[in-house]
Amino acid sequence: MDQRISLITLGVRDMDNIAAFYEALGWQRVDTQDGVIAFDLLGQTLGLYPLDKLAEDIGIDVSQLGRGTMTLGYNSRDRDGVDAILARVPEAGGTVLKPPLEVFWGGYHGYFSDPEGHIWEVAHNPFSPLRESDGAFRWAGY
Amino acid sequence: MDQRISLITLGVRDMDNIAAFYEALGWQRVDTQDGVIAFDLLGQTLGLYPLDKLAEDIGIDVSQLGRGTMTLGYNSRDRDGVDAILARVPEAGGTVLKPPLEVFWGGYHGYFSDPEGHIWEVAHNPFSPLRESDGAFRWAGY
Repeated sequence: MDQRISLITLGVRDMDNIAAFYEALGWQRVDTQDGVIAFDLLGQTLGLYPLDKLAEDIGIDVSQLGRGTMTLGYNSRDRDGVDAILARVPEAGGTVLKPPLEVFWGGYHGYFSDPEGHIWEVAHNPFSPLRESDGAFRWAGY
Repeated sequence: MDQRISLITLGVRDMDNIAAFYEALGWQRVDTQDGVIAFDLLGQTLGLYPLDKLAEDIGIDVSQLGRGTMTLGYNSRDRDGVDAILARVPEAGGTVLKPPLEVFWGGYHGYFSDPEGHIWEVAHNPFSPLRESDGAFRWAGY
């Protein structure tokens, strides 16, 4: 697993309200086709996503997600990379929340949590290839 | 407020256990003088910090922080930048959790939450100046 975070996702109840908050602080939003409101951070994205949909995507009940829910996203160059990382999680002491599977939009992903419940998505997105820069692969964004 | 996140902090109960988890996935830790275990992410840092100390630093009770606690960090070029951002938070709809003040290690910081409880630290660290690269100021790291 390379040392990068492609995506920080905030689980949000009122998308317009939270988007307006970050806009009021001076950030510029990008609305994406898949319902994410994204803020581009140079090779990384801060995304807002409805809390109930996020819980559904992870495959856990929304009651298991607390105040100020955030997840971290790791984008892999290919599907094998997703499989390899999730395969290592149990022996490393974490928990696979969602084994890797194809997603309706054409990607491939799974979720894990570290031993204290910080949640990660591991994904391969064929429509958003990683590009090499600064000696490391970084995500090209939405 | 520029569009960047300098730091992602995981609030952690068992630092050695969580550090070992990320090392088992292939990441390399850096131990810092201030008790943070850091993973360098090219202009950004994922830091592990004891949950009770994080709550103390924010100025809230640890019971207010949930499972998988994470905070986002924004580093400012100077103290005025910290003041300016925290001054904008209330009118933007957020809550200042900790007004800006001098920290024992020589920095200057405050905390706010967005309208749904995602927590941010806004800090000026005179010992870790931002450097300009890729058209935006990024943190030089620990």
